[in-house]
Amino acid sequence: MLMSFVFGFLSSLILFQPVTTQSVADVVSESRLSERLSELGQYGALSDGGVTRQAFSDEDVAARDYIRSLMQQSGLSVRLDAAANLIGRRPGTSEGLPAIALGSHIDTVPEAGLYDGPVGVIGALEVIEVMNALNLETRHPIEVIVFTDEEGSMVGSRAMGGKVDAGILETRVQSGFTVKEGLMRLGGTAEALSSAALSPNQTKAFLELHVEQGGVLENAGATIGIVEGIVGIRWWDVTVQGVANHAGTTPMKGRRDALVAASRFVLAVQAAALDTPGRQVATVGRIRAEPGAPNVIPGKVTMSLEIRDLDEAKIGAIFKDLQKAAAHIEEETETTFEFSPIDADTRAAFTDRKVREFLETVARGLSVDYLSMPSGAGHDSQNLADRVPIGMIFIPSRGGISHSPNEFSKTSDIKTGVTMLAESVLLLDREDW
Amino acid sequence: MLMSFVFGFLSSLILFQPVTTQSVADVVSESRLSERLSELGQYGALSDGGVTRQAFSDEDVAARDYIRSLMQQSGLSVRLDAAANLIGRRPGTSEGLPAIALGSHIDTVPEAGLYDGPVGVIGALEVIEVMNALNLETRHPIEVIVFTDEEGSMVGSRAMGGKVDAGILETRVQSGFTVKEGLMRLGGTAEALSSAALSPNQTKAFLELHVEQGGVLENAGATIGIVEGIVGIRWWDVTVQGVANHAGTTPMKGRRDALVAASRFVLAVQAAALDTPGRQVATVGRIRAEPGAPNVIPGKVTMSLEIRDLDEAKIGAIFKDLQKAAAHIEEETETTFEFSPIDADTRAAFTDRKVREFLETVARGLSVDYLSMPSGAGHDSQNLADRVPIGMIFIPSRGGISHSPNEFSKTSDIKTGVTMLAESVLLLDREDW
Repeated sequence: MLMSFVFGFLSSLILFQPVTTQSVADVVSESRLSERLSELGQYGALSDGGVTRQAFSDEDVAARDYIRSLMQQSGLSVRLDAAANLIGRRPGTSEGLPAIALGSHIDTVPEAGLYDGPVGVIGALEVIEVMNALNLETRHPIEVIVFTDEEGSMVGSRAMGGKVDAGILETRVQSGFTVKEGLMRLGGTAEALSSAALSPNQTKAFLELHVEQGGVLENAGATIGIVEGIVGIRWWDVTVQGVANHAGTTPMKGRRDALVAASRFVLAVQAAALDTPGRQVATVGRIRAEPGAPNVIPGKVTMSLEIRDLDEAKIGAIFKDLQKAAAHIEEETETTFEFSPIDADTRAAFTDRKVREFLETVARGLSVDYLSMPSGAGHDSQNLADRVPIGMIFIPSRGGISHSPNEFSKTSDIKTGVTMLAESVLLLDREDW
Repeated sequence: MLMSFVFGFLSSLILFQPVTTQSVADVVSESRLSERLSELGQYGALSDGGVTRQAFSDEDVAARDYIRSLMQQSGLSVRLDAAANLIGRRPGTSEGLPAIALGSHIDTVPEAGLYDGPVGVIGALEVIEVMNALNLETRHPIEVIVFTDEEGSMVGSRAMGGKVDAGILETRVQSGFTVKEGLMRLGGTAEALSSAALSPNQTKAFLELHVEQGGVLENAGATIGIVEGIVGIRWWDVTVQGVANHAGTTPMKGRRDALVAASRFVLAVQAAALDTPGRQVATVGRIRAEPGAPNVIPGKVTMSLEIRDLDEAKIGAIFKDLQKAAAHIEEETETTFEFSPIDADTRAAFTDRKVREFLETVARGLSVDYLSMPSGAGHDSQNLADRVPIGMIFIPSRGGISHSPNEFSKTSDIKTGVTMLAESVLLLDREDW
C-alpha cells in the first residue's frame, strides 16, 4: 500500500530525502499511465482484450513509432542502436557523467496482456514526465530504453550486454522473421550488432520496472518486489526407455512400463524442489509416451525437465538428486533414463547489492510494503548485469497470471512502482558510489 | 514339448484314443507349415522380414486368393459368406450333422509378423492335410474359416456371431476403405451382412489356434495354452484439470500441476492391478500435457485408461478403486478428474467348458505341457461364443512379442498346436454332447 512521504527517514546506509517540496507521488499520473498502456495495447489488440505484438511484426513496428512519439513529446532525443534498441535521452547537467538507464520491452508473446513489458516502458516515460513537471534537473543523463525482442531472442539486451553469439542473426523468431530480417525492419544494423555493447562507464545503473508474473507479492500482501536476481534456468530432455508390449497379453509383473517409470520421476522432481528449503522450482511441462495407444504399454517416454534457482550450485545439487532418483527408478522398473541438456541454459544474474540497498531505502522512505525476492522469469536486465549495476522493481500480477489476456496489474500499483523508480533515479543521481 | 502318443490314456471325463495306427503327429508336416507361412508372408512382405497386410488391401485380396487355392488343392469346397468370410468345407459322412469349424485370420496390423492369424489358418489347413493323408473320414463336416478384418472392425466374425451393428459398414479401417467398400473388394455382400450369422445347429464347435502374443507360456515353460476365455476390455479417457502457470514465477507450493496429479494416477493404476490377486491388467498407454512447454506448469492432462479381465465384476471393482484414488489425488493436488468411456467396450467371452475339457484331455493324452490361461488379446472366436461352443489353443510367442516383425513362434510348437487341433477335431467328432 502506498503511504505518503516520510520526510527525513534515515536508512542505516543512505539518507532518503525528498528533493522537492512537491511530492513525486503527487505528479505521477494514474490516468496518463493507464491511458498510455491502453493506447499501446491498441497495437496488436485482440477482440478478447488481449494483445499479440510479436517482435518485428507490423504491430511491433507501429508500437515503437508510438513510443518514439511519446519520447519526442517529452523532449527526449531519440536514437536507435545497431540492435534496434530504441533509446530516448534526457540530458544531465554534467554531460560527462554516465547515464542512469530505465526501460523494458514492448514486444509480447502471442495472446498476451497489456502489462508484461509495457509497464516498464510507459513507467520509465512517466519518470521523465515527473522530472519535467517538477522542473527537476539531474546530474546524470537519464535514458529510457525499449529493448528489441525480449520474448524471443533477447537480441536487444544481449547486444547491449555484449552477449550476442554468432548464430543469433539467423535465428527465426515466432513472427516468422530471422533476427537479421527483424533488425532491418526496425532500423537496426545487423552487421554492426557488436557496436550496441555498452562501453565501460557509459551507464551508471539500469533499473527495470516489471510485473511480477507470479503470485508471490499478492499472496504476501506486498505492493513492491525488490528483485535479488534473475534465476538461472536449466532445461533437459529426459528419455525413459522401457519395453513396449501388448497391454492385454503382458501380465503386470513382467512389464517394463516407461510411463510408470516416468510418473515416478515426475513425482521425484516435485519432491526434490519441495523438500529442500528455498525458492527453487522444478517442472516437467512436456511429456510424450510412445507408441501412445491405449492398448500398448509405453516403451518410451520423453519429457522435459526444468530447474530454476538464483543459486547455480543448488540447481546442480537438485539435478544430482534427480539423477540419483532416476537410478533408483531404473532399478525398480527395469527401465533406463537419459538426460540431455537442451535450449535454455541461462545463468543466474544478480542485481547489484548497492542498487538493491538504494531501492530498499526508497521503499522504506515511501513506507511501501516490499518484499525481497528472486525473479523466476527472465528479463532484459539480466543481460546487462555483467556490465552495469542493475536493479529491478516488481509490482503485483493479479492471480499471478501473465502471458495471457487475463494478465492485470492495478494502476495504483503501477503508480507506486513508478514513484519508486523516480525516487530511486533521484537518489542514484545524488549519490556517488 | 511334444511327446509321442500315450495309448489308452484315461481322462476322468473323456476317453482319448488314437483313431489310426499311424500317429497324427507323424503326418503333421513342419516343412509344409513353415513353407506355407512363409509363402503367405510374401503378400505384403517388408524388407525387414515383417509384413503389412491390412484388411481389404491389395495384399489382403491376393493372400486370400492364395489361401483359396490351398483350400481347393486340399479338396475343400470353397464359399464366401456375405461378410466375405472365406470358408472351405470338407464333407462329413453324416452331412446332416453340424460342422466342426476351425480358423482364424490372415489380415495384419501395419508392420506385423508372420504368425498372428496365419498360424490358425495354415494350421487348420494342415488338419485337413492330415485327415487326407490318413484317409480319415469324420461324421461331421469340417470347415476352415478365414475371417474378414480381424485387426480392425472384426466384421467377419461379428457378422457370423450375429453381432454387427448399424454403423459398422461406414467405419473406415486403416487401409483407407470403409467396411462396406472393403467387403465389396473381397466379394462379400454388404447389404446382406446379417445373412452371415450362424444359424442354430449349423456349427458344433469352433476351435481357433493362435499365437499367445504374450510371454506367459514361455515364462512357464509350457508349449500349449488352453484358453479359459477372452478378457473383457474397457477404455476411458481420463482428463485432469489443474491450472497452467509460469514455471519460473509460480512457487512449488501454489501449484495445481495437472501432470503431478496424473503421475500419481498412473501409479495408482499400476497398484490397483498389481495389488489384487488375479490376472487383471490395467494400463495408461497415452498421455498428453497441455500446453506442453518446458517452462509452463501443465494445466491439463488427458490420458487413456484400459482395464482387462475375464471377470467383468473385477473390471468394475478396479475402476471403482481408481475413482476413489482419483478423488484422493484431487483433494491433495487441487485438481479435478473426469472419466469418459471411449471406443473399446468388449465384454469378456468364455470358451466352452466342455470344449476345454476335450482340449485338456487331448493335451494330457499327448503328454503336452499345457497351461490354462485367459487371452488378454481379442480374437475372432470371442464373437462366436454366444452361438457356438468355442475353444482356443495358444502356442508360445518368443519373448512375448507380437504385432511386430520380430514376432516368432517355433515350427515345432506350431506342429504341437496343429496336432492338438487335429486330435481335438477327431475327439469332438466321435463324442456326442
